[in-house]
Amino acid sequence: MEHAGSTERTRLRRLPEKASFDRAEVHRILDAGRVAHVAVVGDRSGRRPTDPGLDDPAQPYVVPVAYARDGDRVLFHGSTGSRLFRALAGGLPTCFTVTHLDGLVLARSAFESSMNYRSVMVLGRCSALTTAADKLAALEAVSEHLMPGRWADVRPPTAKELAATLVLALPLDECSAKVSTGGPTDDPADLDRPTWAGVIPIRTVLEPPVVAADLRVPAPVPGYIEDWK
Amino acid sequence: MEHAGSTERTRLRRLPEKASFDRAEVHRILDAGRVAHVAVVGDRSGRRPTDPGLDDPAQPYVVPVAYARDGDRVLFHGSTGSRLFRALAGGLPTCFTVTHLDGLVLARSAFESSMNYRSVMVLGRCSALTTAADKLAALEAVSEHLMPGRWADVRPPTAKELAATLVLALPLDECSAKVSTGGPTDDPADLDRPTWAGVIPIRTVLEPPVVAADLRVPAPVPGYIEDWK
Repeated sequence: MEHAGSTERTRLRRLPEKASFDRAEVHRILDAGRVAHVAVVGDRSGRRPTDPGLDDPAQPYVVPVAYARDGDRVLFHGSTGSRLFRALAGGLPTCFTVTHLDGLVLARSAFESSMNYRSVMVLGRCSALTTAADKLAALEAVSEHLMPGRWADVRPPTAKELAATLVLALPLDECSAKVSTGGPTDDPADLDRPTWAGVIPIRTVLEPPVVAADLRVPAPVPGYIEDWK
Repeated sequence: MEHAGSTERTRLRRLPEKASFDRAEVHRILDAGRVAHVAVVGDRSGRRPTDPGLDDPAQPYVVPVAYARDGDRVLFHGSTGSRLFRALAGGLPTCFTVTHLDGLVLARSAFESSMNYRSVMVLGRCSALTTAADKLAALEAVSEHLMPGRWADVRPPTAKELAATLVLALPLDECSAKVSTGGPTDDPADLDRPTWAGVIPIRTVLEPPVVAADLRVPAPVPGYIEDWK
């Protein structure tokens, strides 16, 4: 099995049977997602006056971001006006987590009741793309991941819009996947209970397109949308 | 509008029109979710030898957790064997974020293309519930949020199982909601483009139950599952 950057920090200590450092698995889980939860720690200016001083552990902030994987890195973007994105661009350590909830696992005991899911955690430091060409290519990659085929239809970013956009890349050097799948694994002593057990699968679906109220120029729903799922 | 613990830290600086501190809105978004992304910072033992020393900002870790809201707090649980959960139980500052992705927003420009979503961010410090009665009530609350009606059917936790479970409560003292909804808001100059614009709604659905392979005692699918959504 190929290892996608397993380190002491991403090697899971709990439920190790669920952990995976298989690079293809990490890529599949990332490619199946649209939103990641990204964390960065706050700076001193964000602390409450009532907090203890220097010894106080840093406050993390977690925000959702749209992203795409591009080879061995993930790309996402935010506003240059966001303090959090500027902190990420400055190279503060971050954690980038993507989770798919796949099902409710109904066991015979409360203790074994759980969820099926696939999750990837990436640790590292982002770098901000600097050239207009790099930024443009990254924004196209994110757009084409979320809305395949759309990029050719939209007005591309102006120089001013590009300048207002921080585009961040996070390498997939240090990452792991965690997957829980299948039915409940009950304690043998519970198997004789007259209780139904199984899984309720959960799925994310796209619904039919809703046209914008201000569509002035008649235009059909683009064909590429039909392939989205 | 009632304010659900707005502070300097949760007052959003970007896109303030999307921010809300309405307590009912925060509760609605939390109640519509199953999984939160929770962050805590690492400790020194987790740092790489190559990292700079004392000046190095802390490394955040973000993990998915199942949760329930109980009045003005959220409840979730983990293993006493998890270093991350022990750090949370120890009162390290945390951030608890819940996000619902509601749609892809197809604007005429790349810059205005976006996503509709609802998100809540809670800052604070967790406390671990200590008595068996409190822990049991919290586990029931989480179970009944995720699988309403199920608690009466399952074998309740034993004293040993309870002892192995860290049950955490995080008060909703400092939190905010961020909501993006509706159609694209294009630049007026882009409205004459012959480009379709609108929204592709995204929804999470539960699929029909899948029975466990090891169901020994014949039992019908419980009626309460039909109401889950």
